[in-house]
Amino acid sequence: MKMDRWRASVRRILNLASRPGPAPRSFAAGRGNPARSGSLHCSGRSCRETQFYFGHRQPLSMHLRETEFALGVSLIQSRCFGSVATRIQRNPKFATINSDDIRYFRDLLGDKSVIQDEDALLAANMDWMRKYKGSSKLLLLPRSTEEVSQILKYCNSRCLGVVPQGGNTGLVGGSVPVFDEVIVNLGAMNKVISFDEVSGILVSEAGCILESLMNFLDNKGFIMPLDLGSKGSCQIGGNVSTNAGGLRLLRYGSLHANVLGLEAVLANGDVLDMLGTLRKDNTGYDLKHLFMGSEGSLGIVTKVSILTPPKLSSVNVAFLACTDYLSCQKLLLEARRKLGEVLSAFEFLDEQAMDLALKHLEGVRNPLPPALHKFYVLIETTGSDEQSDKEKLEAFLVHAMEGGLISDGVVAQDIQQASSVWKIRYSRSIDESRGCLQI
Amino acid sequence: MKMDRWRASVRRILNLASRPGPAPRSFAAGRGNPARSGSLHCSGRSCRETQFYFGHRQPLSMHLRETEFALGVSLIQSRCFGSVATRIQRNPKFATINSDDIRYFRDLLGDKSVIQDEDALLAANMDWMRKYKGSSKLLLLPRSTEEVSQILKYCNSRCLGVVPQGGNTGLVGGSVPVFDEVIVNLGAMNKVISFDEVSGILVSEAGCILESLMNFLDNKGFIMPLDLGSKGSCQIGGNVSTNAGGLRLLRYGSLHANVLGLEAVLANGDVLDMLGTLRKDNTGYDLKHLFMGSEGSLGIVTKVSILTPPKLSSVNVAFLACTDYLSCQKLLLEARRKLGEVLSAFEFLDEQAMDLALKHLEGVRNPLPPALHKFYVLIETTGSDEQSDKEKLEAFLVHAMEGGLISDGVVAQDIQQASSVWKIRYSRSIDESRGCLQI
Repeated sequence: MKMDRWRASVRRILNLASRPGPAPRSFAAGRGNPARSGSLHCSGRSCRETQFYFGHRQPLSMHLRETEFALGVSLIQSRCFGSVATRIQRNPKFATINSDDIRYFRDLLGDKSVIQDEDALLAANMDWMRKYKGSSKLLLLPRSTEEVSQILKYCNSRCLGVVPQGGNTGLVGGSVPVFDEVIVNLGAMNKVISFDEVSGILVSEAGCILESLMNFLDNKGFIMPLDLGSKGSCQIGGNVSTNAGGLRLLRYGSLHANVLGLEAVLANGDVLDMLGTLRKDNTGYDLKHLFMGSEGSLGIVTKVSILTPPKLSSVNVAFLACTDYLSCQKLLLEARRKLGEVLSAFEFLDEQAMDLALKHLEGVRNPLPPALHKFYVLIETTGSDEQSDKEKLEAFLVHAMEGGLISDGVVAQDIQQASSVWKIRYSRSIDESRGCLQI
Repeated sequence: MKMDRWRASVRRILNLASRPGPAPRSFAAGRGNPARSGSLHCSGRSCRETQFYFGHRQPLSMHLRETEFALGVSLIQSRCFGSVATRIQRNPKFATINSDDIRYFRDLLGDKSVIQDEDALLAANMDWMRKYKGSSKLLLLPRSTEEVSQILKYCNSRCLGVVPQGGNTGLVGGSVPVFDEVIVNLGAMNKVISFDEVSGILVSEAGCILESLMNFLDNKGFIMPLDLGSKGSCQIGGNVSTNAGGLRLLRYGSLHANVLGLEAVLANGDVLDMLGTLRKDNTGYDLKHLFMGSEGSLGIVTKVSILTPPKLSSVNVAFLACTDYLSCQKLLLEARRKLGEVLSAFEFLDEQAMDLALKHLEGVRNPLPPALHKFYVLIETTGSDEQSDKEKLEAFLVHAMEGGLISDGVVAQDIQQASSVWKIRYSRSIDESRGCLQI
């Protein structure tokens, strides 16, 4: 009976492919090829999970012990943050930039790496959602750990506030100044230092853009253990400093699981070399974990050593409907058990989220009959054998349907369909950031 | 040609099964059933990797800032440690136990949890290899975090040295006193607090024995993300405090990847509640990582929250020979790529290690013709589909053989054969600990 219902339901499946390409395939039908791609994932998850660079709860300075800004100078600069109940004001203990400071930085870094141009500063002073705006007068672009160290040492001695910045793609304003802090952008430190093709261990400078590292690894047959919507701009140092999660967390774990070593510069300029590449190093205190998620408040990450998984060729995406929340939970349990080693994503949406996405977001369509389902689940598998992975997913889906856990579903037939399905999930964060969709 | 050689070689395979059961099967032959078991793994790896409880670089006390023992009292108690170039002596600043202390602890814990019996103390004062021996006069068995807190608070106020102890299965003497420290054994804190069958998150007290947790999870369809030779005695708190690696690290990562939260008691009795169960928590400083691998020197871990993977039913073990080290490296690379998601162990031995194991260890046999091979590799796969996993392993092995990466090999046919193969690897650590095999 259930099987019949399922098949009837499958026949009603909306055609994803108004764009060229095969129709989406019911996993009960057993035909066609699974989608495959190494770049299906394209979204950050939420404000806290999406990467930005170092946070500015407190500008880096020798006064790290001070946890609150004292009453200060300019009311124009004071702003209210969502997580802070009261307005904050600039601490007058911090110095302001003068011409001697500029001269020092020009001597240290060269003229091209000391930015005072207003247009360039405007971009660096503002986050990409335009929610937060600082008023820094100086943007520095160091090219080496030694230069970062010298900058921080000098700022520390002069009591100049500092905000570290990477791709400036964050959603919580962590990478822009609160007031007039010196912005230290790591973008010029963008070299891959080494890659071991046997162990898959990549060592790079902190300013490497995530997508550049992905492209570098793709040629070697590996992938980054994290993927984010802003991969084209965000930097690995910022990912690590914010402990960015991303869409591969279910499969590969958090950065605490994959980062093997770090180099970081403390506020006084001291360089902490924790750049190990030993996977099973369990000797002594593992200080690097303190820097992961501390958002620059303990120091600036300058180099990263990270374990990268091998690239697997077979990717399948299914989009399913469940009648109740309990079924979604049971489906997750079954997916972990039956798909186990190939399960790479399990994403959940309720009816309201889907309605909002369909109403507000361009190019998003529900591959299942609308208004019939309360809950939706996106499942992705990634494995090394196309045929066996496909059969495994199909067997799981038939089993789940027979058990009443899912009421309808489609399996993407190619990368376009897979991308289209992912877009439903992806766009939630993107649109949320534009302020028109509050889920 | 290579294929012929391979098959000829396979015919020479020594019969693992002097014990009842089918003969080991060449993976080129395509017959028989793969071994399957959830408990094939049975070894710690090395001194630093095998679990013991909290280290005693310094007894816990209010004087944590003192990093060296001052000149002290009894030469009988002074010992030389491998990692310390000079003899250490008891710091006279630490107090010694008196009758008031005993009375306090009896009032706090009850008579049965305050151990002064010489025989019981002898076991607690010595590590299981009998390499290190302390002279504590007092063993305490708290049953709650509150009791641990009260003990440490009191010891701190009295300046009594403390050594935390779990299963006392370590290989580096970290769980026994250096001198006459109070031993705080967590064995009585052995309750499972909660288990979420949807997320697989287990919360337990620190004194739970690893194997007990494995058995508990086995009934629920999950496994612990780590496995160690001493699982029958070691405790999860000690595993976490020493950041024990174990045989599942390749698949599931280190404890930094899987521990979601901790509760720990500091030397002054303060309780740090970091017992979160949120997998994607990237808010604020992640202090729990500091306690992982710090071996008790920062505090006593009292509760652990850990992510457990679902149990997968299909396990296959192959034991292979390689002619040179480069082939072993290439084989690892290929295994990560071709076996990808099912690869659960890749263990390496050279000829000398094998010869020593065969010479000194009871019940260990080489399943391949002896003295012909320079290097050996043990590969294990764990997946959810027996047939497809087996085919995947066989295809990989034939591919590796045709590519000249391996020169001979067997695939275990059942759990006995798999255990026998694992014994080669397992026994290295065991015998090393007995001092008769120095690899």
